Amino acid sequence: MGKFADKYFKVCPWEVVEEGFDPEYGRVSESIFSLGNEYMGVRGYFEEGYSGDKLQGSYLNGIYEENITEKSAYKGISNRGTFMVNGVDWLYTRLELDGEELDLARSKISSFKRRLDMKTGVLTREFLWYTKTGKELRVEFSRFLSMITPRLGCQRITLEPVNFSGKIAVKAGLDFSPIHETMQRSLWDCLKQGISDGVTGSLGRTKSSGQMVYAGFKIQSKQPLDYTYVEKDKLNYLGFDIALDKGKGTCFDRTAVVHAEKNTVKNPEKVWSEGSELANLYGAKKYDEVLAENRAYWNDIWNTFDVSIEGDDDNQQGIRYCIFQMHQTYHGEDSDMNIGAKGLTGEAYGGNAFWDTETYCLPFYLFNNPKAARNLLEYRYNTLPQAIERAGDLDCDGACYPIATLDGTESCTLWQHASLQFQPSTAVAYGIRHYVKITGDKAFLYEKGLEMLVQICHFLATRGQWSSRTGKFGYYGVMGPDEFQMMVNNNCYTNFMAKKTFEYTIDVLSETKAVKPEAYAQIQKKLGLDEAELDNWSRMAENMRIPLEEATGIYEQHEGYFDLPHIDIKAIPVTDFPLYHNWSYDRIYRNDMIKQPDVLMFMFLHNQDFSCQSKKVNYEFYEPRCIHESSLSPSVHSVLASELGRHREAFDFFSFATRMDLDNYNRNTREGLHTTSIAAAWVNIVYGFGGMRSDGEMLLFNPSIPAAWKSYSFRVLYRNAVLEVKVMKETIIFKTINSLETKIKIYGKDYSIGGEALEIPVPEEWRG
Amino acid sequence: MGKFADKYFKVCPWEVVEEGFDPEYGRVSESIFSLGNEYMGVRGYFEEGYSGDKLQGSYLNGIYEENITEKSAYKGISNRGTFMVNGVDWLYTRLELDGEELDLARSKISSFKRRLDMKTGVLTREFLWYTKTGKELRVEFSRFLSMITPRLGCQRITLEPVNFSGKIAVKAGLDFSPIHETMQRSLWDCLKQGISDGVTGSLGRTKSSGQMVYAGFKIQSKQPLDYTYVEKDKLNYLGFDIALDKGKGTCFDRTAVVHAEKNTVKNPEKVWSEGSELANLYGAKKYDEVLAENRAYWNDIWNTFDVSIEGDDDNQQGIRYCIFQMHQTYHGEDSDMNIGAKGLTGEAYGGNAFWDTETYCLPFYLFNNPKAARNLLEYRYNTLPQAIERAGDLDCDGACYPIATLDGTESCTLWQHASLQFQPSTAVAYGIRHYVKITGDKAFLYEKGLEMLVQICHFLATRGQWSSRTGKFGYYGVMGPDEFQMMVNNNCYTNFMAKKTFEYTIDVLSETKAVKPEAYAQIQKKLGLDEAELDNWSRMAENMRIPLEEATGIYEQHEGYFDLPHIDIKAIPVTDFPLYHNWSYDRIYRNDMIKQPDVLMFMFLHNQDFSCQSKKVNYEFYEPRCIHESSLSPSVHSVLASELGRHREAFDFFSFATRMDLDNYNRNTREGLHTTSIAAAWVNIVYGFGGMRSDGEMLLFNPSIPAAWKSYSFRVLYRNAVLEVKVMKETIIFKTINSLETKIKIYGKDYSIGGEALEIPVPEEWRG
Repeated sequence: MGKFADKYFKVCPWEVVEEGFDPEYGRVSESIFSLGNEYMGVRGYFEEGYSGDKLQGSYLNGIYEENITEKSAYKGISNRGTFMVNGVDWLYTRLELDGEELDLARSKISSFKRRLDMKTGVLTREFLWYTKTGKELRVEFSRFLSMITPRLGCQRITLEPVNFSGKIAVKAGLDFSPIHETMQRSLWDCLKQGISDGVTGSLGRTKSSGQMVYAGFKIQSKQPLDYTYVEKDKLNYLGFDIALDKGKGTCFDRTAVVHAEKNTVKNPEKVWSEGSELANLYGAKKYDEVLAENRAYWNDIWNTFDVSIEGDDDNQQGIRYCIFQMHQTYHGEDSDMNIGAKGLTGEAYGGNAFWDTETYCLPFYLFNNPKAARNLLEYRYNTLPQAIERAGDLDCDGACYPIATLDGTESCTLWQHASLQFQPSTAVAYGIRHYVKITGDKAFLYEKGLEMLVQICHFLATRGQWSSRTGKFGYYGVMGPDEFQMMVNNNCYTNFMAKKTFEYTIDVLSETKAVKPEAYAQIQKKLGLDEAELDNWSRMAENMRIPLEEATGIYEQHEGYFDLPHIDIKAIPVTDFPLYHNWSYDRIYRNDMIKQPDVLMFMFLHNQDFSCQSKKVNYEFYEPRCIHESSLSPSVHSVLASELGRHREAFDFFSFATRMDLDNYNRNTREGLHTTSIAAAWVNIVYGFGGMRSDGEMLLFNPSIPAAWKSYSFRVLYRNAVLEVKVMKETIIFKTINSLETKIKIYGKDYSIGGEALEIPVPEEWRG
Repeated sequence: MGKFADKYFKVCPWEVVEEGFDPEYGRVSESIFSLGNEYMGVRGYFEEGYSGDKLQGSYLNGIYEENITEKSAYKGISNRGTFMVNGVDWLYTRLELDGEELDLARSKISSFKRRLDMKTGVLTREFLWYTKTGKELRVEFSRFLSMITPRLGCQRITLEPVNFSGKIAVKAGLDFSPIHETMQRSLWDCLKQGISDGVTGSLGRTKSSGQMVYAGFKIQSKQPLDYTYVEKDKLNYLGFDIALDKGKGTCFDRTAVVHAEKNTVKNPEKVWSEGSELANLYGAKKYDEVLAENRAYWNDIWNTFDVSIEGDDDNQQGIRYCIFQMHQTYHGEDSDMNIGAKGLTGEAYGGNAFWDTETYCLPFYLFNNPKAARNLLEYRYNTLPQAIERAGDLDCDGACYPIATLDGTESCTLWQHASLQFQPSTAVAYGIRHYVKITGDKAFLYEKGLEMLVQICHFLATRGQWSSRTGKFGYYGVMGPDEFQMMVNNNCYTNFMAKKTFEYTIDVLSETKAVKPEAYAQIQKKLGLDEAELDNWSRMAENMRIPLEEATGIYEQHEGYFDLPHIDIKAIPVTDFPLYHNWSYDRIYRNDMIKQPDVLMFMFLHNQDFSCQSKKVNYEFYEPRCIHESSLSPSVHSVLASELGRHREAFDFFSFATRMDLDNYNRNTREGLHTTSIAAAWVNIVYGFGGMRSDGEMLLFNPSIPAAWKSYSFRVLYRNAVLEVKVMKETIIFKTINSLETKIKIYGKDYSIGGEALEIPVPEEWRG
């Protein structure tokens, strides 16, 4: 796999710690120390200003700018890209002592330490500052975002003079001028600034999309402060002095509100007054009070859903960091929000959500936070009108979900992806099926899920075509999830997932007709669905072309794939990576190398549809052809390798899953965290080593344990029961921690698990 | 085919005539009345100014602007498009009578007549102008471009007052402000303007590319004129009065020089002085003197290469118009120039040259003007360095000729075309072969042709790949000339033409080794060519994958083509055309519909490699699948239909070839003429009805005659002999008009043709 760890951060079970500051590593650290609370996110940048290299990012979920390019002369090609826009610096601070401004790129400092506490979500940074005038001051910045009150962020600055007493000049402000990295300029106009009732406020509006953000804050300090209020272009701040007393720590706090308004026609004055009201209300909260709420929130999370690993400190810290970041990025607060490929931690992929949401993130929430899982599906329901419009742009009926999106519209302006990849639509269908199966939430299915399923089927039925020669139904001119086979006919993944979507939808419709005739009638009426159409879908599903070489049992990724020139991927020089930068664009697409394994992917998703032998031959065929240029690819390999008893290989593929970012394996963590890969790490432990399968009528477990681990345990929420699985070298203990009974299958045998621990030996072949 | 004729222009044997002016048809007429002399072109716009709808175009061959878009993150994708830029209006004129400016959009006129004389190349426009003050003035504008002196254009304005005597105010100037249509602005800066030695001059420079154009003119008038010189932004002009005498015609002439400088680092002062010198020299020429030269030039052309058709006035005018426009567009003056898809008559396709040059235009010149044919190939030799660089961009060795170009670099920024279509490279190789075969010019082959051939083979050898499963060599991820099958493997055309290129190059190398060892040694040394490489090429040619269904003899256009969903193209509603505007982009690419016939195309080019039966089954299979969205497609069908004895069908496919633009069949003549299709019309008569074949060792003829024609005749230059073929209903007469003997094959029998007429009966099966 040719990936190497940077060992920069300290390995601790509940913290991420940086000791000493390496400016070369500054952007990576900013990413790693990102905070988020679903509503907003802020990178771990230095709020006191920093003249060195940085990506000073502050983002709001769903607040975007547009990039509108020349309208294509061709139909169905989107010319409007949207991207999550770097917004207001609500932590803006400047410290000046004896006329010298603190700036870690220039100031003399020592004892630098930055620390993210995963039990509270607090990021702390401390160091000693030596001024040119010989003064020595201990400085500590703390910040966190409230997990309870979405718009609220807190900051505490503690100052402790070591060798002097005196005054320090402080500026605490709101700044809309930070540049959006990829555009190299600020994309905000500042509409209004002001101070009233102790709230300093500022209102910005994006230049193209016209969305608005209000930021406001209060300063809380035991020491009475004498403020000067200053406005400067897109920045406004309070200036004040803090009296310092030698050897004694003094602190002041900021409680800030950031309020986003997506409705672009709303009167800015109204946004200002709404924001001001919230800032008044939440701004009055005390730092310690909000912190206590956060501690309780995280305590609850860890008590219920921690994954513990004994005997592997690296992965222990890694998996906790993954779980921590997942909850920070999304926890189901709002069904108008989704999960960008980099969460709220950077600009890459423009904050857009992809099929990763349903494919990789949804399982995590299904078993940890079903409300969040449901809200992710509600997001797709809310954006169904956009998906219907998109299908129309593609000359099809029904709904085609976008390959990349912020607001439900197609944000990908590369036609080859936007017009040829359909895995988002089948992923939504899969997500509905998965959600309903695990939660039993039929109400959602009847009210919303069914409508999406039917619309997706409409799309699949009109986008597909019959070959008159083979008599088969299939998809021509498509790209599967594997983006290295660009424009092919009858991609196995696309066709198989379409087949399953038709079948599930038909099943659900027939069940609905029987069980909920009024819901069925409503859908029929609303969508003009007739029996002939259902027959059509049946025929399509039944005659779906799934290229398979009978003799070997190997699925052909697409028609003609087996005839492609072969590349020995191990012979590609490491300096050729990433290939997109070093190989001519078309060169990537004309051989049997794959970026991620389409065939293995559908065998993972519909795991129980395939025999072990089938998985084995396909794994053995495709694994050597896959270069894993998608960060999601190794986990799928790891999960299947576990199932196939290739435990060593499973562990090798897992080896950097939990620490992808902590150890900067892909050398691009500086751009932001691989948020959706973080979800895959959890999947890798629970589905891979834990051997859980959730695609059938019952949860299955076939746990194995990596040789290097002493034990590991995880918990999953399943129809209200919290099931704990603790896997040791020789035995496994199953129980539910909330005493509810649940039926599961372990190593092929049925069990009913309750509050009492059930101990089962690990069979020889499952020991890693 | 669903194309309909606009019958707007009068049908005359030697003229194109418009009687009465229809503003709705203004842009079409501007295109039709375009003049060109290879060096420059000017649309038939109204030089006196026109406030109605127009495309006021004036172009210089090879003078372009650049459109540089954001650099792609992917390798090998060009981000620099070049396009022939609308330049100086050197005909700028304004006429003012009693304060009223002549403007055909507003003025009251009658008896409008516009006339293009194909025996002189003069465009004349006359009408009666009625002023608001009741005056009546006959106005006549004439213009032509010198076919002898590339930079020279002439204009004559004749004024004849019907009912008054008096003065008319005239402005005659140079204007760099006309907008470039697609950009909606002028793309020129005016660097210098001035008047000296009776020459009014102006120097412009393109804003991005930095190329320069000097324009200068002299006014010649029997009447002594009193000039005022005026400069205004990008316009400068002479203002003067002309005295008018009732009932008497008065005229004045302008002789203008337009001098283009492609060297962007040249000192503008130097360009100015060079231009001024030329303007002084040529400007002194008299209008009638230059006109006489033109008349002689055209006389020579028509005497030698006219195609005459008895019994079909429409096609008679049409084919003469085609021949006229071909010579106007290109006649081999300069090997730094090429032939844009629309010649010098409009902005569509940006003036770029395509593979059409070697495939459709070259045969016309081969048999009419071998110097021009050679210069077209010299152009490819001159731009070999750019083609080598382009191959490097695509991670290949050798030379890859661009899909669209002005200066030899790839000007197409759509990667799917620029990176996947290789017909330009094999077309250059084919062109070299064709040229050498017809002219016998081996010197060119040894000096330049061979080097191009070897470099093209280097490219073909490194772009192709071996399939380990089939053991065959081929091209993966390509688009053939048929752009409706976008990204396929082993396109028949690509592979077959590559095979022929390898074979021809190997033959030429072995012949050179034997006959010209020093030339061989030089090539070997220059290009580092070794025997192993030649063996490689042999193996590639021998094992080239050419998909063929043995049972039927039908070539499969590419692997998997036969399995594609079928579309009945006749069932597509006419309102869906053009498909690119009305169908989702990807929808076009996923069925068996083709835009142009790749298989028939290589059967046309290498005609004698295929049996009649093979042509028959392939014609019958592909013809119903082709929608001819390329204007070049019908001619290929017509030629093969003639060969297959489908004479009625051949004539139907031919029916709009000669009058594509005169009758505006494609409804887009307003954008400019279909210059490369014009060449195909000639090919259609000579290769189609004339049944000439030039791909073997000897010229063959199998003439047929359309039922509607009484007779037709054409002439071809073949190894210095001018062979005339006159086909009548029952007999054909062959002779050479310059008395040289030449050997040809007629209906399969060998003949030697000389100055004496040989009469041969038309066999029954060849009568249309």
